[in-house]
Amino acid sequence: MIEMTHEVTPKKRDLGSSRLRGMNFLNEVSSTYPQAISFASGRPAEQFFRVEEWLGQINAYVGHRAGSGDRHGTRNLLAQYGRTNGIIGELVARQVLADESIACQGDSIVTTAGCQEAIALCLGVLCRDENDVVLVRSPTYIGLTGAADLHGVALAPLVCPAFDELPDALEHEVRRLRRLGKRPRAIYVIPDFDNPTGSVLGIGARERLLSLCAREEILIIEDNPYGMFRYEGERLPPLAALDRAGCTLYLGTYSKTLCPAVRVGFIVVPKTLFGRADEAERLIERISIAKSFVTCNTSQFTQAIVAGVLLAEGGSLARMVEPARAHYGKNLRHMVDSLKATLGARGDRVRWSHPSGGFFLTVDMPFRFKEEEVKLCAAQGGVVVMPMSFFALTDDADRSVRLAFSNVSFDQIERGVGRFADFVKSRI
Amino acid sequence: MIEMTHEVTPKKRDLGSSRLRGMNFLNEVSSTYPQAISFASGRPAEQFFRVEEWLGQINAYVGHRAGSGDRHGTRNLLAQYGRTNGIIGELVARQVLADESIACQGDSIVTTAGCQEAIALCLGVLCRDENDVVLVRSPTYIGLTGAADLHGVALAPLVCPAFDELPDALEHEVRRLRRLGKRPRAIYVIPDFDNPTGSVLGIGARERLLSLCAREEILIIEDNPYGMFRYEGERLPPLAALDRAGCTLYLGTYSKTLCPAVRVGFIVVPKTLFGRADEAERLIERISIAKSFVTCNTSQFTQAIVAGVLLAEGGSLARMVEPARAHYGKNLRHMVDSLKATLGARGDRVRWSHPSGGFFLTVDMPFRFKEEEVKLCAAQGGVVVMPMSFFALTDDADRSVRLAFSNVSFDQIERGVGRFADFVKSRI
Repeated sequence: MIEMTHEVTPKKRDLGSSRLRGMNFLNEVSSTYPQAISFASGRPAEQFFRVEEWLGQINAYVGHRAGSGDRHGTRNLLAQYGRTNGIIGELVARQVLADESIACQGDSIVTTAGCQEAIALCLGVLCRDENDVVLVRSPTYIGLTGAADLHGVALAPLVCPAFDELPDALEHEVRRLRRLGKRPRAIYVIPDFDNPTGSVLGIGARERLLSLCAREEILIIEDNPYGMFRYEGERLPPLAALDRAGCTLYLGTYSKTLCPAVRVGFIVVPKTLFGRADEAERLIERISIAKSFVTCNTSQFTQAIVAGVLLAEGGSLARMVEPARAHYGKNLRHMVDSLKATLGARGDRVRWSHPSGGFFLTVDMPFRFKEEEVKLCAAQGGVVVMPMSFFALTDDADRSVRLAFSNVSFDQIERGVGRFADFVKSRI
Repeated sequence: MIEMTHEVTPKKRDLGSSRLRGMNFLNEVSSTYPQAISFASGRPAEQFFRVEEWLGQINAYVGHRAGSGDRHGTRNLLAQYGRTNGIIGELVARQVLADESIACQGDSIVTTAGCQEAIALCLGVLCRDENDVVLVRSPTYIGLTGAADLHGVALAPLVCPAFDELPDALEHEVRRLRRLGKRPRAIYVIPDFDNPTGSVLGIGARERLLSLCAREEILIIEDNPYGMFRYEGERLPPLAALDRAGCTLYLGTYSKTLCPAVRVGFIVVPKTLFGRADEAERLIERISIAKSFVTCNTSQFTQAIVAGVLLAEGGSLARMVEPARAHYGKNLRHMVDSLKATLGARGDRVRWSHPSGGFFLTVDMPFRFKEEEVKLCAAQGGVVVMPMSFFALTDDADRSVRLAFSNVSFDQIERGVGRFADFVKSRI
């Protein structure tokens, strides 16, 4: 574990700073080299989007809610200003119980305009004081970093090369922050197939994290976009399913199970916050107030698309995502095999992870791989990858890249990894 | 004009503060007295929502963009992660040219998750420094106040009982703020049928406001949800159509012309900012970065609903909104007639406005009308109204209420105004 000296003063960063422009840089590289094979973006595979079918199911939800024949009721439900916290909480609650073993009521759920809004709302609502700090493993999801910078929320990075060291890193950093007069308010974590590392927080570390956060009254913001996409081994229960103290805000999304354009995500607030039911209610009310000033309410049209699918599937999405899950698993194995075939002989100097799920694996190299190398790799090699430094809050993650295998073909994986391997070998 | 002593230090207000809880209070009153007639909410009339037709036109947009037969292209366009700034800029540009005389290119437009997101993005992006201040007429739209409080953006209220005094009030306050070391960054204004006052900024005041803002390099955030709903007299050009200096960010919405649940609004950034094209590009880039960390992108499904309507209507919405416009105009005249019939004899002490468009009129009374009176009026009178104090940033707006006439029937107007008049007479 590395001693942190990170500055935690909150600051509304310049929105043009390099930390936030990472995505734009990638887009520029991709558009400069349109022939390049891209492992940069963790998009779901489009062949599983059943757009026409889903649009046709909107009426199923209308029937479920409004009864048939009431044209005014339908118009009001689907098209008027809607309830700030959303209209499909009961169905979402049923799905997270079926698929994630999380027990909750519909009125504990805030439906959001994609999970990105859920993240932005949590940060904006939880951190109102300049001494509030959110702790986060570094490297981490760029959408968390960006939302924090937009809102001027201070982040304290936790560096733990082994994911299971997270509770220790947290405990250490909490003590340090308290000495500085800061308030460790929440920890953001993706326990299942973390973005960008692909790693999984073990069951023991989950339990230790929960008991530490319960004791220290630190909220956990658990983000779980990839939980349903495990390819090997048994699924672990999310933190929210293990949480008995009431310290976990669970963030979910339908971007990967259905498709990104529904822009429907959600926050599950626990029944109590650290045992206090009134505090949980207060938090839901504040999230709701904040949401009303960001997007008013999530479109009922897109909520109805999600609801139509949930109704058609009988509440769980496990059956529906099975073909996609199998596809991603095969892609992962093919990428690992391709890496082995091309870089296996450099196994002492180049290493890659073999995650048990999710959309990403990582490759560690014996040389720096930052913006300059991304450009060179695209120009010379014809392949675009994500440097780990884009996700890092510290300067120590510059010899590693993230490869996404979710929205590429077998052929692209083979050719792309071949090109990447050639580039890497030319640099060693 | 009143000398301001308002505190302009930016502060992330407690999200439970009364200023932000206004909407919740109204909801509570409405649910406690479900039989009450409500003039509280400026919702569009539901009988004009052609939901089934609009959903059926999504494919028209797909055909327009992707060509027919390309299933993969369709899926990608409609369902995958989309361009942050949206995919319907060209069609929106055509509509604002046709309906608002605003000339712009599609790539100057950022499509947002409703106009509320547009407001939140403008505040979040423009005000990055603690000395940045946004000026705003008081009373004003609660969504502006809420977004400012959420982001910790300082507001300086301009009190100008006559709307056309706005440029003078602005000039005075800008001087005061500069003396305090503050930076007047932008002014937020609804020139057409302002919410909550219903008033219109005259053409002379528009020109003076534009030249003042050009000279002082203060951006204008022009919000125009009601411009297409004028019932008497000639329409005035929006500020963005008159702007030659490049100082106006134009905010539009399809919530009133189509329906709120599409949750599609937009920002038009001028071609130059105060003559500088690079600054305009920089601003669009920053809005785009901020949006990517709030909602990633606006749902393409809802963008396609709007696009389908715009294509079907040949680019302008004027013809389509005509029945709704006529309906709102009749409602307004009926409400004014009902006020005259019931409170006309008190004309010396009770006065109401007769706006030339929009969704609201105001009633001034010779007694305080705040939360307590709203409750009494709902309990005793069976009618719910919006106290002007909910919209005010100062303490001087406590003898006035806002009545919305957009989503009520003739019968509700008659009975509701009758009840309201009885309550008012009982309090005089």
